[in-house]
Amino acid sequence: MPVYSTNMRLKFPIVALVLEVITIILFGVFAVYDDGKSHGHDGHDGQSNETHAEKAMDLYPMFQDVHVMIFIGFGFLMTFLKRYGFSSVGINLLLAAFGLQWGLLMQGIWHLKDGKIKVNIFKIINADFSTATVLISFGAVLGKTSPVQLLIMTILEITIFSVNEHLVANILGANDVGASMIIHAFGAYFGLAVARVLYRPGLRNGHENDGSVYHSDMFAMIGTVFLWMFWPSFNSAIAESDNDQLTAVINTYLSLAACVLSAYAISSLVEHKGKLDMVHIQNATLAGGVAVGTCADMSIGPVGAMVIGFVAGIISTLGFKYLSPILASKLGIQDTCGVHNLHGMPGILGGLAGIVAVALGKKKGEATMQAAALGSSLGFALVGGALTGLIMKLPIWGQPPDQNCFDDSVYWEVPEEEEENEESLAHADHSKNKTEA
Amino acid sequence: MPVYSTNMRLKFPIVALVLEVITIILFGVFAVYDDGKSHGHDGHDGQSNETHAEKAMDLYPMFQDVHVMIFIGFGFLMTFLKRYGFSSVGINLLLAAFGLQWGLLMQGIWHLKDGKIKVNIFKIINADFSTATVLISFGAVLGKTSPVQLLIMTILEITIFSVNEHLVANILGANDVGASMIIHAFGAYFGLAVARVLYRPGLRNGHENDGSVYHSDMFAMIGTVFLWMFWPSFNSAIAESDNDQLTAVINTYLSLAACVLSAYAISSLVEHKGKLDMVHIQNATLAGGVAVGTCADMSIGPVGAMVIGFVAGIISTLGFKYLSPILASKLGIQDTCGVHNLHGMPGILGGLAGIVAVALGKKKGEATMQAAALGSSLGFALVGGALTGLIMKLPIWGQPPDQNCFDDSVYWEVPEEEEENEESLAHADHSKNKTEA
Amino acid sequence: MPVYSTNMRLKFPIVALVLEVITIILFGVFAVYDDGKSHGHDGHDGQSNETHAEKAMDLYPMFQDVHVMIFIGFGFLMTFLKRYGFSSVGINLLLAAFGLQWGLLMQGIWHLKDGKIKVNIFKIINADFSTATVLISFGAVLGKTSPVQLLIMTILEITIFSVNEHLVANILGANDVGASMIIHAFGAYFGLAVARVLYRPGLRNGHENDGSVYHSDMFAMIGTVFLWMFWPSFNSAIAESDNDQLTAVINTYLSLAACVLSAYAISSLVEHKGKLDMVHIQNATLAGGVAVGTCADMSIGPVGAMVIGFVAGIISTLGFKYLSPILASKLGIQDTCGVHNLHGMPGILGGLAGIVAVALGKKKGEATMQAAALGSSLGFALVGGALTGLIMKLPIWGQPPDQNCFDDSVYWEVPEEEEENEESLAHADHSKNKTEA
Repeated sequence: MPVYSTNMRLKFPIVALVLEVITIILFGVFAVYDDGKSHGHDGHDGQSNETHAEKAMDLYPMFQDVHVMIFIGFGFLMTFLKRYGFSSVGINLLLAAFGLQWGLLMQGIWHLKDGKIKVNIFKIINADFSTATVLISFGAVLGKTSPVQLLIMTILEITIFSVNEHLVANILGANDVGASMIIHAFGAYFGLAVARVLYRPGLRNGHENDGSVYHSDMFAMIGTVFLWMFWPSFNSAIAESDNDQLTAVINTYLSLAACVLSAYAISSLVEHKGKLDMVHIQNATLAGGVAVGTCADMSIGPVGAMVIGFVAGIISTLGFKYLSPILASKLGIQDTCGVHNLHGMPGILGGLAGIVAVALGKKKGEATMQAAALGSSLGFALVGGALTGLIMKLPIWGQPPDQNCFDDSVYWEVPEEEEENEESLAHADHSKNKTEA
Repeated sequence: MPVYSTNMRLKFPIVALVLEVITIILFGVFAVYDDGKSHGHDGHDGQSNETHAEKAMDLYPMFQDVHVMIFIGFGFLMTFLKRYGFSSVGINLLLAAFGLQWGLLMQGIWHLKDGKIKVNIFKIINADFSTATVLISFGAVLGKTSPVQLLIMTILEITIFSVNEHLVANILGANDVGASMIIHAFGAYFGLAVARVLYRPGLRNGHENDGSVYHSDMFAMIGTVFLWMFWPSFNSAIAESDNDQLTAVINTYLSLAACVLSAYAISSLVEHKGKLDMVHIQNATLAGGVAVGTCADMSIGPVGAMVIGFVAGIISTLGFKYLSPILASKLGIQDTCGVHNLHGMPGILGGLAGIVAVALGKKKGEATMQAAALGSSLGFALVGGALTGLIMKLPIWGQPPDQNCFDDSVYWEVPEEEEENEESLAHADHSKNKTEA
Repeated sequence: MPVYSTNMRLKFPIVALVLEVITIILFGVFAVYDDGKSHGHDGHDGQSNETHAEKAMDLYPMFQDVHVMIFIGFGFLMTFLKRYGFSSVGINLLLAAFGLQWGLLMQGIWHLKDGKIKVNIFKIINADFSTATVLISFGAVLGKTSPVQLLIMTILEITIFSVNEHLVANILGANDVGASMIIHAFGAYFGLAVARVLYRPGLRNGHENDGSVYHSDMFAMIGTVFLWMFWPSFNSAIAESDNDQLTAVINTYLSLAACVLSAYAISSLVEHKGKLDMVHIQNATLAGGVAVGTCADMSIGPVGAMVIGFVAGIISTLGFKYLSPILASKLGIQDTCGVHNLHGMPGILGGLAGIVAVALGKKKGEATMQAAALGSSLGFALVGGALTGLIMKLPIWGQPPDQNCFDDSVYWEVPEEEEENEESLAHADHSKNKTEA
């Protein structure tokens, strides 16, 4: 039965090839290079998120930082599971590679010029951003979904994201430069809604593969640290001016630094004998980047940024320790990576901080619109995620059975070291490893 | 006998020190800092590859991206072998560190000003590029050659590369901004020619160490993803103008994204039960970067780039599955990393695409010269590689015997964990690891 | 007893939270965003290290390179120990995150404008730099100190560093663009002084956990290679003009390349059967970056830089092989990472090279002041380190007992794979790992 249902031999290649061919056709119809004539200082047409870059390549270094966050950061952050590293970094690459193409189309159709999407660095940064929503949601369902299910989630989530983003940025005119609301809160609650629909009673008591080993935790730290380092680029890449970018960099840099201290302190406080817990360190140290996102380009002062980061580190760590088990047992939300604690609550905190900051005049805008943006992001996420979950639940997408969750070998050829080890246990005296003379 | 032949105690230090001392002397004679007076818009003297940078440091962020590809990208991509990670990343560092010095000299002698090589960011990018040829060839002979052999290959290959590069760029005036022909195809076929000359019948039936373990595949993914992310910098770094750079970035970004989808789809299609194969994911996802190289700065349109990437992903994956075994069994070409599939065929595809694109007027140039450039690159590679292989085959360079192939412990001090494990198997009850109270 | 003394449950959270709250308050009083009005070409007020950047974000890509060196480079370089990876990368993150905040304050109070520290990219680069001293010293005491001890070291070392830096740069007016003296030599001798005070006779004969396993050496190479690649940014980030930056980049690039060859050669020359030693490769290949630091922006010529790097690689490798064992056995200096060989001696070499270069007129300055700067850096380091060590030695900071050194499980929740292995040894026939059907 599992063999039948998880065999991807035709399903996955067909879905992937058809999606890519359709995407290429759409690019043929819509996508052209930006000739540089339609943007810049005289190009404002009511959009708040047009780039300030004067030269074509000005934003390129920031794009590359964001690119590293998407592919190394998110990819390796999820490699903490002992037997799911291939999927974490490999499916992350698949979803992001498809998602950035789809995102370029979905975001581009709101800003057509002469019927075309004019591709430039600003637009590919935003395309990378759009994939972040999917990668966050991926964290909530990590280990429990098939590549086909996840490709479907990618299309639907990025489409819905683009609608909400357009509403928030262009209709409501709300500020969200670092995307606490439209990416982090959205991605988290979308993923949690999907996870709720895909609830697996059979995993109520845990799963032997749902945990880390020493080296898988080390790989995950590669993801954590790259996300942590480049977050200032994430929060400042699309800010409107050099000075706004500088503000966003400094706010994010300091928020993250303060967040590390509070995350470490609370981790030690709540754990057995005051020990630090890798789950907290890998995740809660990043909550300061999420929570300062909406306010990043606002004049909240270095101290304002640090307070936000400090609080985010506390909330996130406490969430991992106390809230996640409750969500799983009482609400049936099995959140593999704890995205609620890293992206969900800190994202809401960021949205709330943005409302307060705008109300206090730290940036032009209306507090009401900020609140509407937060509400819209949560609403689209929960409803969109639930509907997407229902589609993903159809029994034809190769979802793994409970006993094969969190296991690469369902969808990947995995080197047979386990078997070798077993063999060597049986025949320790005939060890193959004596190659050194 | 193996102990004698692979002992590097005097051979390697003498070769390395003598090479470095000679190199330093040559730098003393030829190398000076660029004072900024000889390049820029008025400095054109028939060279198509002089930098467009107006300020000394404009290209520095792109240089750093390329630098990461050379040292992390190539280095970790080759760590997939279970017992050859030290050599992969360590010898990669050695060869690239020597190669960039040698490349700076070999490339510089074609462009002397007042008898001097004026070192600037543009030149060190090209020096890094020259090492890429060696690192590609290294992939073909990985695990079967000694550090001394590889240093010899580095000198010879970069010297020959520089002649061909000068011919292609300055004499023929061909376009190859992302170096599909002069780096990727050249490096691959050079390496394959070396591998053919060094053919080892004893490895016809494989080798127990010629494979991966779970974590070595994870380390390799670090290399894959960094190469994938920074490839747009590789293909655009030496483009002539900001707009050409933008075009090259967008083409490469989209080609790679499309390539991921086709590589994953074909991997699943050809493997047992539709499972994904890490070898394909680690390598074929990058073929789009190789194949779009020659055309990267041409107006092929986003859709043109995506078609190239899509096709490259298919060709590369099929090559790993069906062609590599044939090359090994029928032609005696044992290509450890499958560079023919990642750099060889996609490089030729890139060269062919360039001929077509120039013929269609996507960039100024002559299709005949593009074809001559491809032919020249392949010719220099095959002849140069064969001659280099003959020199490397001399029995004095410490080449490892068959049974010690793919094994770090021939040339490296390796921690004795295997032995410890064996011991702990024998005395499980006296485990040393009970340090946690 | 160990359980009592290393339990961090209240100590660590209280120290971390109190330090962060105090820091946030100080930021509230002193820190504002730089409005761009006080620096630039007309802003010179006798400081030699004010930035040359004309636009707010010009230095941002270099900042990010330095950021990667601090968090990935230093963090992963220290993961070579088999059971201490969580602490290496995790405590590195903690110390650097706190240190950059403290450094921003300590460095800022010497340059107050209107009673405020005006935060900009130049200042956060310097804040990152200040943490490097602590991370170097951390290497000397790695595995033998508690997080609380290390937080105390962070505050004291950065405070003392800031005094010495102000003296060297602003009072003496000495050149040290790449900080061979004020960061590398200072950090190394500070750490060695601390290590001397914390001398553990019980570790005289080594410790079973004071060594690497295969994959821990691979993780360490991630640190090595990122440090190696981005060192040109470290040495050029705060140079005064574009041309000085270019000089610093080229000098560092070439010094490091030459250093790799000499480090590999000497490693092979001194080891058993000519094999390479990972300890040398991970560390001595970087000595060229340290040693060229002071001279990086001076007109020493490419050949001068290469000679410095070449010598540094030799000295550093010989230090690891012959000097470190003597320091441990005769002087009671147990230098876990060998920082004396990577930062100490090469730092002094850099300082001496700077004296010679200034005397030869390679840069404006006085050789006497360069010598005074070297002396001052060593003096502050040794005295400051000794005093700091005495404070750290107080028996209330949770220092681990000898038998628990080099072991994450004292301060971290560690996945129980060791135990599982033992169990599976006892019950090989009931292996849990048979999840693949």
